[in-house]
Amino acid sequence: MSKPDQGIRTDIGWSDASSITLFGRDFPAEILGRLNLGDMGFLELTGRIPTASESVMFNAMVVTLVEHGITPSALVARLTYLGAPESLQGAVAAGLNGLGTVFVGSIEGSAKMLNEAMPEARKDADFKGIARAVATSFQERRAIVPGIGHPFHKPIDPRTPRLFQIAAETGFDGPYLTLISAIAEEAGQLSGRTLPVNATGAIGALCCEMGFDWKICRGLGVMARAVGLVGHILEETRNPMAAKIWHSVEAEATAHFHKEHD
Amino acid sequence: MSKPDQGIRTDIGWSDASSITLFGRDFPAEILGRLNLGDMGFLELTGRIPTASESVMFNAMVVTLVEHGITPSALVARLTYLGAPESLQGAVAAGLNGLGTVFVGSIEGSAKMLNEAMPEARKDADFKGIARAVATSFQERRAIVPGIGHPFHKPIDPRTPRLFQIAAETGFDGPYLTLISAIAEEAGQLSGRTLPVNATGAIGALCCEMGFDWKICRGLGVMARAVGLVGHILEETRNPMAAKIWHSVEAEATAHFHKEHD
Amino acid sequence: MSKPDQGIRTDIGWSDASSITLFGRDFPAEILGRLNLGDMGFLELTGRIPTASESVMFNAMVVTLVEHGITPSALVARLTYLGAPESLQGAVAAGLNGLGTVFVGSIEGSAKMLNEAMPEARKDADFKGIARAVATSFQERRAIVPGIGHPFHKPIDPRTPRLFQIAAETGFDGPYLTLISAIAEEAGQLSGRTLPVNATGAIGALCCEMGFDWKICRGLGVMARAVGLVGHILEETRNPMAAKIWHSVEAEATAHFHKEHD
Amino acid sequence: MSKPDQGIRTDIGWSDASSITLFGRDFPAEILGRLNLGDMGFLELTGRIPTASESVMFNAMVVTLVEHGITPSALVARLTYLGAPESLQGAVAAGLNGLGTVFVGSIEGSAKMLNEAMPEARKDADFKGIARAVATSFQERRAIVPGIGHPFHKPIDPRTPRLFQIAAETGFDGPYLTLISAIAEEAGQLSGRTLPVNATGAIGALCCEMGFDWKICRGLGVMARAVGLVGHILEETRNPMAAKIWHSVEAEATAHFHKEHD
Repeated sequence: MSKPDQGIRTDIGWSDASSITLFGRDFPAEILGRLNLGDMGFLELTGRIPTASESVMFNAMVVTLVEHGITPSALVARLTYLGAPESLQGAVAAGLNGLGTVFVGSIEGSAKMLNEAMPEARKDADFKGIARAVATSFQERRAIVPGIGHPFHKPIDPRTPRLFQIAAETGFDGPYLTLISAIAEEAGQLSGRTLPVNATGAIGALCCEMGFDWKICRGLGVMARAVGLVGHILEETRNPMAAKIWHSVEAEATAHFHKEHD
Repeated sequence: MSKPDQGIRTDIGWSDASSITLFGRDFPAEILGRLNLGDMGFLELTGRIPTASESVMFNAMVVTLVEHGITPSALVARLTYLGAPESLQGAVAAGLNGLGTVFVGSIEGSAKMLNEAMPEARKDADFKGIARAVATSFQERRAIVPGIGHPFHKPIDPRTPRLFQIAAETGFDGPYLTLISAIAEEAGQLSGRTLPVNATGAIGALCCEMGFDWKICRGLGVMARAVGLVGHILEETRNPMAAKIWHSVEAEATAHFHKEHD
Repeated sequence: MSKPDQGIRTDIGWSDASSITLFGRDFPAEILGRLNLGDMGFLELTGRIPTASESVMFNAMVVTLVEHGITPSALVARLTYLGAPESLQGAVAAGLNGLGTVFVGSIEGSAKMLNEAMPEARKDADFKGIARAVATSFQERRAIVPGIGHPFHKPIDPRTPRLFQIAAETGFDGPYLTLISAIAEEAGQLSGRTLPVNATGAIGALCCEMGFDWKICRGLGVMARAVGLVGHILEETRNPMAAKIWHSVEAEATAHFHKEHD
Repeated sequence: MSKPDQGIRTDIGWSDASSITLFGRDFPAEILGRLNLGDMGFLELTGRIPTASESVMFNAMVVTLVEHGITPSALVARLTYLGAPESLQGAVAAGLNGLGTVFVGSIEGSAKMLNEAMPEARKDADFKGIARAVATSFQERRAIVPGIGHPFHKPIDPRTPRLFQIAAETGFDGPYLTLISAIAEEAGQLSGRTLPVNATGAIGALCCEMGFDWKICRGLGVMARAVGLVGHILEETRNPMAAKIWHSVEAEATAHFHKEHD
């Protein structure tokens, strides 16, 4: 299909009649039964089997993103399943489509912001100075600093201290965590409100610590939420809410028509 | 939106300003940093934190389904990303849409077959007799027995003995594994070919051992493949193949038109 | 990529630097400005430009399916747009995912039923006898006859007489329309209720009149609803309901948790 | 679900037992059999039934976008159908997911560019001056001017003169068409290449003539392509290419592994 020098090529893996190799490893012998699902995610993103510390940290990052209760995505998966119960995959796919700039986007937003502010991780950086520049720049553009503040969890997002604690235990409490905390501090002072680092900000900073390209950070949310959406579909099969939501919304949204015609 | 006795209700979780509870557990304290991503999948499907054995077995089941190299789903994710690189979630969603009856369907097909043949797990069942009845029934309908044989991995699917080994180590080598092996044996004798249990058959049987409803078994494939598809999109950003595939297929598919007009 | 005798080939169309040919027609000269969007759908399904009668009938069929107000699909599109407003196509795609067996499926269900009951259209068929056999067969299986009755539009679906009228005007009031009316009559007598042909039943019968394979009939609903979902997204940008639905459902679904913790 | 003053409300339509009203019209009497599918799209976007001229112009715009042969979207729909043939809607949905910034995005890109350059349509505008400023601005940012030039159709996109002709016949050959032609002229002079208006540029300009918000312009591509993708799935059922593409790509992409192990 293409010339050798510009060929179609994957380095992820291959198999023959008796073996399966993924990322250079014998899949049945070296991966199956040894790695957990989060480790597989790490392997997909880095090509490496995680160390024990990396495994704990990466799994904590994605586990944070699995389940956020009744989200728009969960409602989408349930409402889609109502019409196409034969297609569980379609319901999960529909739910994932909403993981765009508004929700999961703040992970990549904070990772991008941190990487641009400090392209190379430096332990001796002028964190306060960098943070002030970042916070001021967002304020001047009247833009929201990604990864800080929370509409609901106040004064702090309860996941953040736990993620920072796990980071400390696994050695991932590096310069990007310092920087996002400093940015939260400066942005808070500029706005006169308390704006602590939220869970997506912590995960964005941890993505930087792990060296992930910010463009792929949304992928952590996508792989995690797929797990959670299967749980919502299962609950929908047992205690359905989709039809009730539909009928209730339809009645309310068209009430003004009915009123006019009474 | 609804009356108390028929209300919209979730039992998955809730949060207030300072706490997040999922499946009755304090999320930051009891789940985050303690469960891995596969354990979260188990929690979503059962409402319980897995035991150590359940964790190993369930993670092995989903890890098996993460990455199958260049599949139609992987190609779909890559071709979608070509047109909408701003929407990683849309590329994964598109890829998941193909996990229907043809590929991932054999997990639920084998789980359904096993559950119907032996609705209650019994260690003293007449496995040979049940297996013969199942295999004969499929043969009479000229239907393919789900979960046995493999178009490519011969004589055996290398993942199957490893999954059976992990099942033995974790105590999940129960009656449904015995039954699917017996069905494979009988179906092989009826057809005159060797038709060993394949990976999806083993996972279908393990779903029965774990007590999962067959209707949700496809969900294991969906949550797992979401992880793998993120890896394919990452590789596509580094060494793209989608545009080459497109141009090559377009040229070949329309070659007959060009020929006519020379 | 493949041998000549098994090659990858499309007959839909091709282009060179100065021309575009679709279904054997010069696209700019013979199609553009001459065919409407529904005619393009007919061309895609048949490879032919519709006659004037076919154009009127086919457009009426798809126009019937464009807009059904606040459906689960419309809610899905709106809720998806809330999270990913940068990806209008993802919101429409999510909405389409729910057009499965439950809703749009009754078009293909009725088309399949009619085709199996009368594989060749015959004006002199024993419609009453065939209809009784069909209705009895569904009753014995305790299955719902697709395309008849309506949960809401009573006594009749107001679209059905109009579709039958257009069919009469365009010459599509053939044996399959006679047969579905006869089936509705027989099924009504068997059940003791009035079960008139509904809009999807009329469209299923018209698909048979037009010679469409029942497997592609769902496609009429899919192409039509894509048009309607764009309209819902537009209204969502002007008078949004998605966030309100989300917050309202979340509050109601978790009210029992809050109550326990008061 | 919400207070009267902030209620959930749709103005698209409603129905009661005997009537269906859409956009203030009696659906069976005033729309069904009178409007074609493109007219329904116009109705969804404007709330009005199109005039005869608007009908011709709008249908031409969407018809242009229905079918572009073997595109990535068409391949995605076909590859998805291979795995989930029971879910035609999922295959179309997957195909639509790729209609992002790279392909269909140029419609909204040109509409946005034109609207920002001339927020109010003026027949006596300094088209040459505005066009030079726009072209210079894109050149300085080293950005591609959306809607002009074509990688393949040279010297001109054969759809463009036909769309301009239809615009002249229907009275839509207004200031935005003048402006995009002027921009193409100026951009061509700046770059030293011929960069005529392409089909998406013409459609973007026509969207401005019709007063559509640029944010919804992508919707024209989405509704149109859904029609075309159903046609590709139909051809796939008759002369499949998806499995061949899969096997061919897999073989080529993993050839380097096989070579190493010979």
